[in-house]
Parts: sequence; structure tokens; C-alpha cells
Amino acid sequence: MKKNTASHPTTRLLIADSETEANLFWATKFLVPDPVLFVEHKKKRYLILNDLEVDRGKKEAQVEKVISYSELEKKLTRQNNSKPKQMEVLSYFLKKLGAREITVPTNFPLAYALDLKKHKFQLHAKPDPFYEERMIKTEAEKKAIKQSLKFTSQAIQKAYQVLKASKIKGNKIIYQGIPLTSERLRSVINLHLMEHNCIGKNTIVAGGNQAVDPHCRGDGLLKPHQTIVMDVFPKSMDSQYYADMTRTVVKGKASDKIRRLWNSVKVAQETAIKKVRAGINGEEIHRGILEYFEKQGYPSGKKNGRMQGFFHGTGHGLGLDIHEAPRISKSNQILHEGNVVTVEPGLYYYGIGGVRIEDVVYVKKNGCEVLSHCPKILEIP
Amino acid sequence: MKKNTASHPTTRLLIADSETEANLFWATKFLVPDPVLFVEHKKKRYLILNDLEVDRGKKEAQVEKVISYSELEKKLTRQNNSKPKQMEVLSYFLKKLGAREITVPTNFPLAYALDLKKHKFQLHAKPDPFYEERMIKTEAEKKAIKQSLKFTSQAIQKAYQVLKASKIKGNKIIYQGIPLTSERLRSVINLHLMEHNCIGKNTIVAGGNQAVDPHCRGDGLLKPHQTIVMDVFPKSMDSQYYADMTRTVVKGKASDKIRRLWNSVKVAQETAIKKVRAGINGEEIHRGILEYFEKQGYPSGKKNGRMQGFFHGTGHGLGLDIHEAPRISKSNQILHEGNVVTVEPGLYYYGIGGVRIEDVVYVKKNGCEVLSHCPKILEIP
Repeated sequence: MKKNTASHPTTRLLIADSETEANLFWATKFLVPDPVLFVEHKKKRYLILNDLEVDRGKKEAQVEKVISYSELEKKLTRQNNSKPKQMEVLSYFLKKLGAREITVPTNFPLAYALDLKKHKFQLHAKPDPFYEERMIKTEAEKKAIKQSLKFTSQAIQKAYQVLKASKIKGNKIIYQGIPLTSERLRSVINLHLMEHNCIGKNTIVAGGNQAVDPHCRGDGLLKPHQTIVMDVFPKSMDSQYYADMTRTVVKGKASDKIRRLWNSVKVAQETAIKKVRAGINGEEIHRGILEYFEKQGYPSGKKNGRMQGFFHGTGHGLGLDIHEAPRISKSNQILHEGNVVTVEPGLYYYGIGGVRIEDVVYVKKNGCEVLSHCPKILEIP
Repeated sequence: MKKNTASHPTTRLLIADSETEANLFWATKFLVPDPVLFVEHKKKRYLILNDLEVDRGKKEAQVEKVISYSELEKKLTRQNNSKPKQMEVLSYFLKKLGAREITVPTNFPLAYALDLKKHKFQLHAKPDPFYEERMIKTEAEKKAIKQSLKFTSQAIQKAYQVLKASKIKGNKIIYQGIPLTSERLRSVINLHLMEHNCIGKNTIVAGGNQAVDPHCRGDGLLKPHQTIVMDVFPKSMDSQYYADMTRTVVKGKASDKIRRLWNSVKVAQETAIKKVRAGINGEEIHRGILEYFEKQGYPSGKKNGRMQGFFHGTGHGLGLDIHEAPRISKSNQILHEGNVVTVEPGLYYYGIGGVRIEDVVYVKKNGCEVLSHCPKILEIP
């Protein structure tokens, strides 16, 4: 068992469900909630499915062959006069194929690896991406992502409408007679997404200092004249492809401090998007943003016992996973034509609030195409 | 690296996100979308978090100590004059604790295991459940599951209302002037769930022969006088606990064949529920159902090239995972007081349709408490 980076492995193995393991869905187009056995050998793909899934698999899975687990099991039981364990069944199948060296993803379950080692297979844990091809989006994939982004943009604009229709009363934002909370505004967003069969799982609607933790979902009363970060990243249940967009607004009047912060993030994001093209190193884009923020008087690092400034990556690949290769961050990764990545700088200061603006772009030879469209508004009166 | 079943390990390790790895959420109550390092040593729990998550972790995580990854990294960089890799940072931390033998779950990522082995740690892949305690639900957990079930029952009853308000026109079910599809009825269910912050990811609304594949989500026109299986299993974004319920109905008139099938499943389910108590083997309950179905003239197995009859488990544990220990199936597993399990027999015959009825019960010393409540109706006129 060793790591390798061979790009043309003879045999690949996945033991996973395809709701969480995107490589499996990508390779089979078969949605299955429990772990199944998937083997790719000499460019043929095999799915070994239990009785519950085998007939659906035969109809839905885009693989060369769907095999009944229980039939393999029966064959082995007759042969050995005892019921085989799952890894014995798999070994039997792999040996029949003539597979010996097997490529698995780095997150391949340890216990299975130990069993397969006993059966004399050599496993290579291939660092991500398991399928390099997944990074280069097809036209159909680009279209699916655009569709998810369209519903996401609509959902954010529904939130804008709610804020617009709300009235400020003292320290509260009143919507339809009731003080507006993160939970309620998140619900407006998530319900719109669900109407289009998109699931917004941990949609962020975080006001004021809450948003200084970029992954804080936000809870409780939203306040006027403070930043509200809305980070919306649903998965379409139709296509399985994600969207990911962030907008930051203020209900009421933005202070000068907030306005400067917001403008800096907006300029940084738009400058970064202009730099995106095939061949550029994500690190260069990321460093450019950090340097711009520094020049604007926005340092990053620990301050008063907590992280402040810009302390997350600039972007990440988007597709069947919410976070996939390539990254735009301090890690050295070159962008390629056909990548779909987010560009999402942010600035976070305790006492001022959080600002993040995020769009999704498709990398082209000499630039990029912005796939997400939603007005960037600071103040909603 | 070997498997063991030691129930009192000194050191446990998880490297995972807590949205997919329920053990991590259970142990920390911290929701984090990207993989983090979690160590439990001598009953103290440690979370090692990156800059993006460390401050939120300090506020939200219910662990003894939250540690900054980048501070550990800085310390090691100074010590070694080079930036350490992630597993070097983890090794440094584990060695400082005095940990040597480490228990990980069976799905622990292989690549990390190989790295840790190089650092001379002995890893034990512990078969599920990683935390036995997770199988015994606390009062708070039971309440959370009941809450998810309440919204699920309401959602199914909303679907009943839609079917009731629909009219039959030839081979179609017309709702508000438009022929009713699986997609539309699923949307009614999912929207109600989302209104209560519950996510119905792959809600099943499958009519006629489609439901003969028990995991088929269902698509296209729903037809009158045919079975419609509705299997609804949302996760609450408030508590993170799942519900899981199934009802089967017919819009219009059920044929005698359908009526007999439905009644058999209903009797089988209610008989099985009566058997549930602490100490019973799930296999006994499962076998009882198979035998009852046989006696009723409903054999199970391959027929005309596809699985028919009853060919899935009777039930599974329910909690932070949709499928968790213990199982009620052909695998030998004893039920214990405090388990929360589904009871969901089904019968599926091509040409008649699918019928499944599912409720959730809480296992008690001398019986069980049904946690899900929703009318079982065959015909909706």
C-alpha cells in the first residue's frame, strides 16, 4: 500500500455511496445512498450491487456492467461451502478480472484496505483529484452549474426584496410586523431554492460580528446598519451540481468604515476575476488580493485573540462537490481551461463586521466567463 | 494496523467533516463542512482547527480544548526550519499527549493511516459503531427525532391533501388543473419540510411499477388506482437528527390484489412492532415477516429476471445518520433499551406495484414506543 500519482492506472476501486462520494456519481451517474462496489478495469466500469439496488442500477447506471452481489456470493458459497465476507466476494471478482494493482482515493476506508492487502492486492492511494477529468467541465456540466447559480441568484434577490420591504424600528428590522432574524431570512432563501429542487443545507445569513467567523450560519435578530453576509451554496437534486454565491448588504445606512471595507472587497474580487485565465497560478491571484488589502490598510492575522482580515482561500473548484480541485489559495495550483472556480475574497473585523463577495467563473484560454449574475448592492434603504 | 473491538480505547482519532461524519458531530456538537482533526485521549476531547474555523470552534464546540492548527504549525516550523505537513503536525500533537495506539473508524482515510504508520503509530480500525453510546439515545435525542418525525408526518399529510383535492381524469390525476407528477408531489412534501428547516434530500414518491425498486425516487405522471409509495426521510438542520417514515396510498380505487398486498404489509409491520423490545434479536423479527409473507402467498426472490417480494432489511437505527446501528435484518443484532429503529417491511411485485409502511420506534425494556404518527390510509377517493 503506497501513494502514487500515476495518471493511467489499470484498475480503480471505489467503495462508497454516490451521494457523498462525487467520484462515484461522476463515473456512474448512479445515485445510491449506501456504499456499493465500483471497479474500473481496462476502461470498463463495473458496479456490484445488492438485491435492493441491482435492478435500478441496470436501468440507471451508466457503466459497462452491473453485477448482482448476491449471485457472486452464491457462486462463492457453493465453491467454498461457506458464506463469504464482502471483501472475499470483491477479491474473487478482482482476481477474475486479473487485477492486482489497484488505485483508490486517499479517503478509501482503511478497514477495506487492510482486508484487500490480506488478499494480496497492492493498493495505491491516489491524491485528489481521483479523476483529473472531473476538473475540466463539459458543456453539460457548465450548464448544470449555471442552472443552480440562476436559482441561487433568484434566492438572494428574494432576500433583497424582504429587506427592502422591511422597516427599521430602533435596533430592529421589522418584516411583516415581526423582527427579522437570520433564521427567517435563511428560510426565504432555502424555500425558493427548494421550489427549484435545490437544497441549501447550511445557507449562511450572518449579521454584524457573527459573520467575522466566515462559516457561522448566523442566528437571532438581524440589525439595521450592519453588514449581513449571505453565502448560498445549494446542490441541485436534479443535476447534483452545486452553486456557490455570496453577497453582503446593509439594511439602512452603511457607516464609512463599512463602506470602505465593502468597496475594497468588491474591487479585490473584480480585480481577481480579471486575472483568471488558463495557465495562471491560483497562488498569484490569492497573493494579489492579500497585498491589495494590506495597501488599503487591511492587515490579516491574529488581532485581539482572534483571526481578522482575510484568512480564508480566494476560491475553490465547484461541481459535484462544493469544494473540489483546483484551489485559488496559498497552495500552488495552476488553473486550466474548463475549470469552474469561485472567487470570493472577504474582510472581517470585529467591531465593523464581515464582508464577502463571491461569484463563480469558467476558466478560458485568455480570461474567464462569469457564470453567476446577481446585483452587488451595499445599502438597501 | 489491525482491527480490534476494544471498547475502552485510550486514544480515538477522527479526520473528517462533521456534516458527513456523524461520530464527529456527536462527540463535539460542532458543525464543520471541511475535514478537521479530532483527538480523544484519556477522556479529554481536542479539536485542531484552521484559522477559518478556530474562533467559531472555541465558541461552539463542546470539547475540552480547541487548538489552533496554525499555531502548532508555526511552533514546528521554528523547530525544524521547514513547514510541516498536516500529518507531521498531528503526529507532533499526538506524541506530546503520549498517544501511541490509536482507534479510528473503519472508514478512516487510507492515506492518513499510511502517513501515521510511518510516524510509528499503531492504528486500530474499530468496526461500527465507533461510539457504542450513540446507539442508546438520550431523552434530548429522542425528542429531536420526534420533532423531525412530526414535520415528516405533516408533510405526508399535505401530500394526502393534494391527492384528496385532485380529480381523476382517465389515466391521470389532475391537481389544480395540471396532471400530477412524482416531482410535484415530492415538492409539496419537501417544501413543507423546508419550512421547518428539515431537508428532504431524496424523498421518494414512486407510483406503480417504479416503486418495485425500493430506492427509485419516482418521476413522471402519477396514475390513479395504482400504489404510490412515499418514503420521507429528512434531516433537521436545527438538531441534525433524521426522521424516516413511509406510507403507501392509492388515488382512486385499489384493486383486490393491491388491497391484499397492502393489508399484508400493514399486518406484518404492526406485528413486527409488537415484537420489538430490549433483548430481542433483529433477525427474529425480520425472519418472522418473511415467513408471514410466505404464508400469505408472497414469496421473495428473483422472478422474471428481477428481485420481487420482500428483499430489503426490516429496519435500521436512526439518529444523526439515516442508517446506523442496530439493524433489524438477517444480520444478528440484539436490540437494546434506548435504541431508535425503523420498522419498514415492504412487498414489491411487478404488475401490482410496491407497498411499504414504515414507522420509527424507541426500544424499551418490555416493548417499544412508536415515535411516528401518521394515518395509514390505502385509498384516497
